[in-house]
Amino acid sequence: MPVTTTRPSDRPAAQDFATVFARLKPHMGALDVFLRNQLAAFEPEIREMADYCIDTSGKRIRPALVFLSGWSGDGTASTDLVRVAAVVELVHLATLVHDDIMDEANMRRSRQTASRQYGPEAAVLLGDALFAHALHLASQFPTTEVCLEVSNSTRKVCAGEIVQTLRRGTTNITRQDYFRVIDLKTAELFRLSCFLGSKLAGFPLAFVEDSSRFGRHLGIAYQIYDDLADFFGQEKSIGKTLGTDLVSGKVTLPLLALLDRLPAEERAGLVDEILGRRQPDLPGRLRQMGEHGIFAAVGEEVESELLKAEAALVPHGGLPPVPLLRQLCDTLRYRVGNLRP
Amino acid sequence: MPVTTTRPSDRPAAQDFATVFARLKPHMGALDVFLRNQLAAFEPEIREMADYCIDTSGKRIRPALVFLSGWSGDGTASTDLVRVAAVVELVHLATLVHDDIMDEANMRRSRQTASRQYGPEAAVLLGDALFAHALHLASQFPTTEVCLEVSNSTRKVCAGEIVQTLRRGTTNITRQDYFRVIDLKTAELFRLSCFLGSKLAGFPLAFVEDSSRFGRHLGIAYQIYDDLADFFGQEKSIGKTLGTDLVSGKVTLPLLALLDRLPAEERAGLVDEILGRRQPDLPGRLRQMGEHGIFAAVGEEVESELLKAEAALVPHGGLPPVPLLRQLCDTLRYRVGNLRP
Repeated sequence: MPVTTTRPSDRPAAQDFATVFARLKPHMGALDVFLRNQLAAFEPEIREMADYCIDTSGKRIRPALVFLSGWSGDGTASTDLVRVAAVVELVHLATLVHDDIMDEANMRRSRQTASRQYGPEAAVLLGDALFAHALHLASQFPTTEVCLEVSNSTRKVCAGEIVQTLRRGTTNITRQDYFRVIDLKTAELFRLSCFLGSKLAGFPLAFVEDSSRFGRHLGIAYQIYDDLADFFGQEKSIGKTLGTDLVSGKVTLPLLALLDRLPAEERAGLVDEILGRRQPDLPGRLRQMGEHGIFAAVGEEVESELLKAEAALVPHGGLPPVPLLRQLCDTLRYRVGNLRP
Repeated sequence: MPVTTTRPSDRPAAQDFATVFARLKPHMGALDVFLRNQLAAFEPEIREMADYCIDTSGKRIRPALVFLSGWSGDGTASTDLVRVAAVVELVHLATLVHDDIMDEANMRRSRQTASRQYGPEAAVLLGDALFAHALHLASQFPTTEVCLEVSNSTRKVCAGEIVQTLRRGTTNITRQDYFRVIDLKTAELFRLSCFLGSKLAGFPLAFVEDSSRFGRHLGIAYQIYDDLADFFGQEKSIGKTLGTDLVSGKVTLPLLALLDRLPAEERAGLVDEILGRRQPDLPGRLRQMGEHGIFAAVGEEVESELLKAEAALVPHGGLPPVPLLRQLCDTLRYRVGNLRP
């Protein structure tokens, strides 16, 4: 399928998340108050640890998807949307806490990870407690639907992470494998956020379905961007250690693309680094990625998913959430443009 | 409070779990079929791992509590009870998987632990997936009550495990601390099992409450027994490595009692072993426990909780579950009697 990276001229200028999120200030404020109030539900010993995780420095992109998909136009956040935003954020935080144990990452959002701060054992259980609390909040809706959807998505997210973990340090991974994993581990929660936001706001079923499709493709695009940023980001601005994917033998799209393009004799060296037989040479690999146009190629994959996301919204141009959701696509384009090849 | 260890003479003879559970054969068979059918819900890569955990060799004491608390007398298992039994068992299995990561245990139920079999990283995620699936099943009841109760209990179980983990390798632990932890990490799920079993079977609220109280005290008794078995069990019959609590610096009631009774000069050596400053001397500690009557003292604590459990049932003597629940107490007495001081 031919992919264009040209931005249609009727779009507002690309902007950073901060700009789009400015309108969500009251919503995020309400979410923050709500999350802080949840701390009382944890046993005293865990409160500090949970508080450490529920920090305000995260992007909170999943809650934003809830609020934007359920956008009514009057700028206020309903109790239902705030609660469900808390649910998806807590599920996400729980997976981050567990994820950082696997990655042995030291930094996340410019702070020590929970695993580094409290030890991996406590981090396993802290993640569990956050999961459990998310499901507890999900049970507070009048029907079982939210709980059903959230637990189903959570299982998929875990499945994606497991498959990724089992594949770590192996190189016989196809593009299909990669896309399946990110669909499960990232896109599923993006999809869920849009589904629950639009559903709880009472939008027609057709929009609920299409905004879910939007969320899924945005999630895939976002994960590809995130994997690209692991090589081409700036440690300071993305707030975590760079190059962790290569170091931990995780074959993401930039590495897949490089493996694909390297001549056989050079590929062997990279395979050895992924298999952990040889010290990874990050600067050397970045140079090779530059030589083989990896940044542009992976950037086009992001764009391809963003176009699919936007296409899902086309039939619903008149609904209040649509312009805002499209802006999210532009902010991701802007983010990709800000990485340095 | 004075504690009697005399068994009232109108009780049936003490018996092993196997005897009591014989009547639950159709129920456990239905549960097994139900659990096996759940495997299809997992992604292919995880199915084998989940299958490994859902083995049939476990005692399935929590499902038994569900079935016995909801016992109608006709020997059949309702769909609701089977589903909720699967929920509590999956939550329990998830906590075991995560627990074994902390304990670095090699064996559980005479098999390698999931952590040893698949690696700790995959085990973290497998536990998450089992949790998520438990909550998914809990969401399949007509109202949110099961989901609400299960997620709440799960959070408490995690809290208990976290507090226990944070205290590992410290010796300034009181009896109150110990009882608070086992109340959260074990008794809560026993309580929940009885609550949901009696509730879903439609028993009067007074019995639902009292059977929950029964479950809680049985859970405390069971955990004290389990901690006693870590010192006085037989590796073959309990199916796991002995002495892990001392080795991992976990101060359970037998160790607390020993610390309490040892003269100061001998206590320092034990403290060093718990703090990990010195190689643990399990045979030596067992000898000291023998000298100081630790087995009998801890056995009396089990009995004290069993009496509280039985007391909760007194007002409901005419209900079908009551004789069976009382038999459970006797089987635990039999188990304690079978340990060797």
